Amino acid sequence: MTYCCGILVEGGLVMIADTRTNAGLDNISTFRKLHIFEAPGEYVVMLAASGNLSVTQSVVSLLKDGVENKETGEVERLSDMKSMFQAAQLVGRAVRASRALAGDAVEQVSGVSFEVTLLLGGQIRAEPPRLFMIYTPGNFIECTTDAPFFQIGEHKYGKPILDRAVSYETDLYDALKIGLISMDSTIRSNLSVGLPIDLAVLRRDALKIETSTRITADDPYFGALRDSWSRALRAAHMAIPRPPYGGDR
Amino acid sequence: MTYCCGILVEGGLVMIADTRTNAGLDNISTFRKLHIFEAPGEYVVMLAASGNLSVTQSVVSLLKDGVENKETGEVERLSDMKSMFQAAQLVGRAVRASRALAGDAVEQVSGVSFEVTLLLGGQIRAEPPRLFMIYTPGNFIECTTDAPFFQIGEHKYGKPILDRAVSYETDLYDALKIGLISMDSTIRSNLSVGLPIDLAVLRRDALKIETSTRITADDPYFGALRDSWSRALRAAHMAIPRPPYGGDR
Repeated sequence: MTYCCGILVEGGLVMIADTRTNAGLDNISTFRKLHIFEAPGEYVVMLAASGNLSVTQSVVSLLKDGVENKETGEVERLSDMKSMFQAAQLVGRAVRASRALAGDAVEQVSGVSFEVTLLLGGQIRAEPPRLFMIYTPGNFIECTTDAPFFQIGEHKYGKPILDRAVSYETDLYDALKIGLISMDSTIRSNLSVGLPIDLAVLRRDALKIETSTRITADDPYFGALRDSWSRALRAAHMAIPRPPYGGDR
Repeated sequence: MTYCCGILVEGGLVMIADTRTNAGLDNISTFRKLHIFEAPGEYVVMLAASGNLSVTQSVVSLLKDGVENKETGEVERLSDMKSMFQAAQLVGRAVRASRALAGDAVEQVSGVSFEVTLLLGGQIRAEPPRLFMIYTPGNFIECTTDAPFFQIGEHKYGKPILDRAVSYETDLYDALKIGLISMDSTIRSNLSVGLPIDLAVLRRDALKIETSTRITADDPYFGALRDSWSRALRAAHMAIPRPPYGGDR
């Protein structure tokens, strides 16, 4: 499995992705799932992918090499896009093209699902930062200020903290922190999501990546965050009085 | 959907279940999913059910009316069982019998899944309290002291707090409190799980239910727990320093 989240706040955009892939429980590996396309001063576009790795890797290659637009006959690259909406459409076409390359055969021969879900976030020139979730058929939805995050993959364990703690007004690096707590909750409860974690922070109107790093198992901040969060959760539930329902306590 | 959890600690057993059932999103109703079979001084057996309601209700009726044991030809009731292991086997037979009553037809005619998962917990006479999870085919697993809880239904949202906060040494009513926090996290993130909540607490060797109550939307303790937990989570993440990765903050 996979867990990725994208958080779109007033100050910019945070993208976080784990790196664990598995073909069965006994074939686990590490692959980058967070991809950054950047031309400083012009655009920063980030893509996080969950699902069939052969498809998501093909999508990334197609976005660089170009996807044919069947309506116009032109070959389009991510770097040609004038808006994030155009970029989301292009990713949708790239997903369909990857599927056309091998989809039916993959499903027929190996019985493996060809499902993919992607997060596409970024800013192109003067447009504000935008975040999209793109499905297997290539259709997509856009993140709004009411619920300013999207998750893909193994999303349930890490959803409660996002539901509670993130709003559009949240500080950009607080959003990163809450995203990392969400990732920690997922890693702790589900073996198929694992370190290292890739993350990237794009400040609004900066048009270049402000932070892009990989958190590995010996990262002191993430280690401290995990410990602090565990301790704080214990303290939080211990501070709540015991239930008053019946019994002698 | 459904969310139920059973927590088995040194001091006894806690069972919690929501009451929301739905046939599609536009047909939501309230049904009791936590069933208590009790003969004070002799046994207390609790059953929490998730999955197809017609099956789980039939199971409950069969446990009272009796299930035929095909090996011995005898009709057996839950009240006849000498151990929780026997009780789990009986529930397994009741699930298979319910399935035999209508299962194939249900799946063929309506395309509805006949899947059920049950939690069976309790104490019979001198045996210590035990907790089982019973699957659709009637096979089951037993809870041990290493991971002293089971969840059924929509379990992922509420798993992180149980993973972190519950151990076999946890106080019985702290276990209830943590179970309620787990339920709150689930209700908050998933529409298909909802109030009221049924709960029951069985103290070890008491051989009678110590607490059995239904939490409704206007329950003051549960309301305070939800507020306290939300506030504590916010305080907890705010107390953690912001990530040190790049950027000017």
